[in-house]
Amino acid sequence: MLIRNLDETPTQPIDMPGAEQVSMAMMIGRDDGAPNFAMRQFHVAPGGHSPRHSHDYEHEVLILGGAGTVHLEGADHPIRQGDVIYVPADQEHQFVASADPGDGGLRFICLVPVERNCGGDTPGS
Amino acid sequence: MLIRNLDETPTQPIDMPGAEQVSMAMMIGRDDGAPNFAMRQFHVAPGGHSPRHSHDYEHEVLILGGAGTVHLEGADHPIRQGDVIYVPADQEHQFVASADPGDGGLRFICLVPVERNCGGDTPGS
Repeated sequence: MLIRNLDETPTQPIDMPGAEQVSMAMMIGRDDGAPNFAMRQFHVAPGGHSPRHSHDYEHEVLILGGAGTVHLEGADHPIRQGDVIYVPADQEHQFVASADPGDGGLRFICLVPVERNCGGDTPGS
Repeated sequence: MLIRNLDETPTQPIDMPGAEQVSMAMMIGRDDGAPNFAMRQFHVAPGGHSPRHSHDYEHEVLILGGAGTVHLEGADHPIRQGDVIYVPADQEHQFVASADPGDGGLRFICLVPVERNCGGDTPGS
């Protein structure tokens, strides 16, 4: 049985081109037997950001806390706790944490399908 | 573009056999173009519960707040804010809110694949 708390599952640094100060914890993934989609927890430290990129699979995101912006459809949009964001496949996107240390960075969950739309495993699933 | 806040998306009552005091809001679903999985927000009022049932698709759940238990593998387990729960397909499960009004019920997100494992649309996706 899998019951695992966000606060007790430490995130690990992400070493990926374009990612700055990003760490991730797999909450439910293919190693847990998830057949269709994977839930990951991310933390972006103050001033950090995820890569500005696009890929052939979607994201479903829920902001857990902190402050920052999401780049979508060519513009930056402020995001806050409780925001749910859908990033369709092939749409350029980036999550940027507020640079103010008092904001504590940006914390969110991000779900991906375990298989890419063109076949093969989704990275980080 | 879809950015929608949990607190600004009211839940609607669920009329389903075995569900008591349960309401739901679709956060990202097939109507939004989600091709693989759907994110729903649930609230179970104090003393209420979801049906005790099983089905041919999995759940990935994140507890947002409140107090209660989840029935899984034949036993009841306490759950709290930040708990992530994987309910595999075909496993009997039930979410039960604490009966204490001071606990405010149980609030969580629950994700499902948009297609059942045996084909066809997943209900509530």
